[in-house]
Amino acid sequence: MPPLRRHVTTARFADVVIHGATAYWVEVADDTSLDARGQIGQVLAQIDSTLTAIGSNRASLIQIVIHLADLADAATLDELWDAWVPQGHPPIRARVQSGLGGTCRVEMLVTAAVPQQAPPRNPEELS
Amino acid sequence: MPPLRRHVTTARFADVVIHGATAYWVEVADDTSLDARGQIGQVLAQIDSTLTAIGSNRASLIQIVIHLADLADAATLDELWDAWVPQGHPPIRARVQSGLGGTCRVEMLVTAAVPQQAPPRNPEELS
Amino acid sequence: MPPLRRHVTTARFADVVIHGATAYWVEVADDTSLDARGQIGQVLAQIDSTLTAIGSNRASLIQIVIHLADLADAATLDELWDAWVPQGHPPIRARVQSGLGGTCRVEMLVTAAVPQQAPPRNPEELS
Repeated sequence: MPPLRRHVTTARFADVVIHGATAYWVEVADDTSLDARGQIGQVLAQIDSTLTAIGSNRASLIQIVIHLADLADAATLDELWDAWVPQGHPPIRARVQSGLGGTCRVEMLVTAAVPQQAPPRNPEELS
Repeated sequence: MPPLRRHVTTARFADVVIHGATAYWVEVADDTSLDARGQIGQVLAQIDSTLTAIGSNRASLIQIVIHLADLADAATLDELWDAWVPQGHPPIRARVQSGLGGTCRVEMLVTAAVPQQAPPRNPEELS
Repeated sequence: MPPLRRHVTTARFADVVIHGATAYWVEVADDTSLDARGQIGQVLAQIDSTLTAIGSNRASLIQIVIHLADLADAATLDELWDAWVPQGHPPIRARVQSGLGGTCRVEMLVTAAVPQQAPPRNPEELS
């Protein structure tokens, strides 16, 4: 099997796993003391950072599954999403309300295409 | 990376994204004024339409994650599902209750195998 | 398209579907009369059994999406998870609270890398 590439900073889960030409990761806001708008904006910015780190880009997003703690935040999500998603090259998107725990307002499960041969920007970070 | 093929009709999300030999999409009923039985039946029919559009078929379904707004509809789901799923060639299936919003009763996240080389039936619909 | 390999024991869904070098499956505890700790431990053991059956291993896990019926069980999940997940080679992980129905306390949706060419351990079990 093709070896997995990972970005691992904690013992509990990987930040990113790359299998062949596909990358998988989960984003929650680094600062969950922010309100929903702040957390959603931060998660989208974190997705950008991860895309850059793996040599990919927004137009290579395949699928984003969005868990909101409260669907009352759906309009805010859509406002920030619409300004962020690349026109003509959006991923598929599912959006559901789930229990997230604590003050977490949003969690996104991301799948994206990545170059198979290109090295990651920081190869020492991938095990 | 292999280019993604998409079917895009709105700015917010793709209808289908195809990456290599794998297609990803989300279905909610086109008519969410229907009751749960109506919406579930419509979603399964929409999956068939998408499979045809991408040159795939029910036996090539890999994974379906089903979000029901109310698990009280689980028996209805199973009744319609059992009549629809190809015998001997079912996908894996997860089924959970999630908040879906509005009058939406069911949302399905679908992953399916597709021919890598064959053109889509309506190639002009894929960007 | 590369043919799918499946392990199918019921008409409703496959136990495992393998597409190319990627395996997909869902685990709920075989015995949902157990408490949360019992069910979580059983699900992790069942993942090990499936990994063995498909010729894979814990270090080849890509993604696990965990649905808990009650986030009050999150600490128990983390305790059992941390003792189980391979150090330095964890998958990505999402964890949300969803309605699971009946006495089911946990459901895990698993994606893992598998050898593409090697036969499954019990080839007669794959259709």
